[in-house]
Amino acid sequence: MIPDSLSQFQFDTIYNVFSLVIASQLFTSIFLIICLPRVLPRYRQALTVAAVVCGIAAYHYFRIFTSFTEAFVTEAVGGRGDYVQVAGASFNEGYRYVDWLLTVPLLLLELVAVLALARKVQASLLSRLVPAAALMIALGYVGEVASDNLTRGIFGLLSSLPFAYILYVLFVELTRSLKRQPESVRKTISLLRLLLLATWGVYPIAYLLPGLGIDGSDAWVGLQLGYSIADILAKCLYGLIIYRIARMKSFADDDGFAATELSVEDATNLKRSTVEI
Amino acid sequence: MIPDSLSQFQFDTIYNVFSLVIASQLFTSIFLIICLPRVLPRYRQALTVAAVVCGIAAYHYFRIFTSFTEAFVTEAVGGRGDYVQVAGASFNEGYRYVDWLLTVPLLLLELVAVLALARKVQASLLSRLVPAAALMIALGYVGEVASDNLTRGIFGLLSSLPFAYILYVLFVELTRSLKRQPESVRKTISLLRLLLLATWGVYPIAYLLPGLGIDGSDAWVGLQLGYSIADILAKCLYGLIIYRIARMKSFADDDGFAATELSVEDATNLKRSTVEI
Repeated sequence: MIPDSLSQFQFDTIYNVFSLVIASQLFTSIFLIICLPRVLPRYRQALTVAAVVCGIAAYHYFRIFTSFTEAFVTEAVGGRGDYVQVAGASFNEGYRYVDWLLTVPLLLLELVAVLALARKVQASLLSRLVPAAALMIALGYVGEVASDNLTRGIFGLLSSLPFAYILYVLFVELTRSLKRQPESVRKTISLLRLLLLATWGVYPIAYLLPGLGIDGSDAWVGLQLGYSIADILAKCLYGLIIYRIARMKSFADDDGFAATELSVEDATNLKRSTVEI
Repeated sequence: MIPDSLSQFQFDTIYNVFSLVIASQLFTSIFLIICLPRVLPRYRQALTVAAVVCGIAAYHYFRIFTSFTEAFVTEAVGGRGDYVQVAGASFNEGYRYVDWLLTVPLLLLELVAVLALARKVQASLLSRLVPAAALMIALGYVGEVASDNLTRGIFGLLSSLPFAYILYVLFVELTRSLKRQPESVRKTISLLRLLLLATWGVYPIAYLLPGLGIDGSDAWVGLQLGYSIADILAKCLYGLIIYRIARMKSFADDDGFAATELSVEDATNLKRSTVEI
């Protein structure tokens, strides 16, 4: 629940962090679009999706930011600089779910696309990952807007079933496909998977806080900070690692491309062996 | 008719769904523009039109969103956090018709353009489909703004005549042209036609609701949800399927293009046979 009032420090913290997320998402998106010609065509699908994900997140954080500033007015309660929630205006947590509904399936698509697997394998993975992701978010949303903790708990639990299934597909089934990847990128793909697990893990923890009776303005500020940082890592950092993988695979696929993109020294080394770029 | 009041839950649902439509249309549009170089030039007209359609829809949903939030003011009932949205201004349903007047003919143009038929066949199809689509929307609009159910019914009926004609052209005349398409895309084009039929079918059903005496705030919320989901499917999903067809046709037309765009494994398979990409 949104608190009745925030101190100036709390208000400014959220304000600045939301702005940080907008800047991070928007410019990661622009960066990735500019970088499209710097990977081979077969990896551009992954980069395009990564750019779109960050763009969608920038749009939603812009909405979240506006919703936040409109939900509070300064009122001289006690001292100067205390913010009080405006009656009637509510802070719209739903934007996060709308964002996730679009971006979470796309994040999985990015990961599968950058592997450039055979279309059949790709289609098989996505036909299971994408619906599971959408189901996970939809069930979470029902719990989030529920007014009682029991419903919240039940839908939280239901939502974690597709989450577990996604982890199974990523950590068991995808592992088979990893063997076909160039050795230089295998480690980075594993890292990406761990980043996904670590950042996505933040969301259920944040979801549980109200049920655990952790409430009040400090908890609320902490929750918003947690979501914001998780979103930067899960979308911007994730997209940049996707870009790194796409670059490494492009060099491994095409010596001529590597020779024009890399420093002279690295290009020479690459020719001699598959080097860690 | 717009209801006199909405509960906080109903208000938030519409609010979030309208925002979902804006994000979906805007970023599908951006995605398709970025992807233009990823199909052969002869298919870029279809993709460009698809991007423009989604852009126009994003603009109109931005208007609809603003019209919606301005149509209601918050009023506290009972305890803190119980709010009712009271209609103070009218919600402008006309935006939808303006949107459809522009986008519906363009959706048909997309479909014809991606087939890359001979100019003469293309011109013949469009010279019948586009005016029929414009007539269908214009007649529907007259019925929508009519104050009595009889006028609404008559113009609803008149509007369904060009709709039936469009279906005739798509399902009878277009079928002849399908035989010239590569086998791998025929199934997808049929799917696209069915998507068009299913999503466009939502609009006359929604149009009939007030005449059937289905009214009140729940019906109104349901109607807005129906329109929103139909618009996402009929424009975003439709545009993405157009992109898929354009990609498949590009690969079928040009082996060299396929070799740079596809994974090494798929490109090898494609050379051997016309594979389902």
